[in-house]
Amino acid sequence: MKNESESIFTKIIKGEIPCHKIYEDELVFSFLDINPCSTGHTLVIPKEQVETLDKLSEKSSMAIGRVLPIISKSILEVTGAKEFNILQNNGPNALQTVFHVHFHIIPKFEDGSGLSIPFKNNPINHDEGKELASKISNLIK
Amino acid sequence: MKNESESIFTKIIKGEIPCHKIYEDELVFSFLDINPCSTGHTLVIPKEQVETLDKLSEKSSMAIGRVLPIISKSILEVTGAKEFNILQNNGPNALQTVFHVHFHIIPKFEDGSGLSIPFKNNPINHDEGKELASKISNLIK
Repeated sequence: MKNESESIFTKIIKGEIPCHKIYEDELVFSFLDINPCSTGHTLVIPKEQVETLDKLSEKSSMAIGRVLPIISKSILEVTGAKEFNILQNNGPNALQTVFHVHFHIIPKFEDGSGLSIPFKNNPINHDEGKELASKISNLIK
Repeated sequence: MKNESESIFTKIIKGEIPCHKIYEDELVFSFLDINPCSTGHTLVIPKEQVETLDKLSEKSSMAIGRVLPIISKSILEVTGAKEFNILQNNGPNALQTVFHVHFHIIPKFEDGSGLSIPFKNNPINHDEGKELASKISNLIK
């Protein structure tokens, strides 16, 4: 599973693959999950390409810790969700599918949509995603 | 669900309720989950008593971000697990049962034990917990 080449997330950070961007700073990048479990399902990743959290540098892990509440709060405000889960998976048997550290922020709605295992997710509607990411992103600023 | 009185976790931090302690610094406290999903299932909490992550202060969220990789690495080394999940729940419908922010670190083993929803967990064996917490704690030092 080791892969020294660029992850799909590194390509997203570089703008080589498009995304619905939520947030970016020197160490962190955030964007809507392309297969959301619920409206507003967001990924928060370090720019540092590391497979699993136990290998992440202190500066990247602090930077992610700092923004998780900020991004979560904005997602709740824009989507109207009152509840949410944070999930971060390490290893293929622990549900990890992209081998670049990522934290899921998954809003939980009254209709039941949100985190379940296995994921109940659907491809994003890109028009809705564009508008949603813009609203969340503007609120963080 | 609002409760201004001390949470069970604040009582654990103060030593009023016993726990198998893993780690402590100025802002963060960590201990074995009393009903683990797998061996080494650990909670990492802010000393700041806040119900949900969106309300957590920047300094506490950075402090938790900093230690998640350090504690995870030590848990893997002591338990022999190669994989793990981080889960943090906000709201009763999002699986939160104690209303004081907490991150679960849940090792995933080849026997299948680890994170599932709903949790498949069992009461901790306190003799094993004491030994395990001591080993993980010593490795962090």
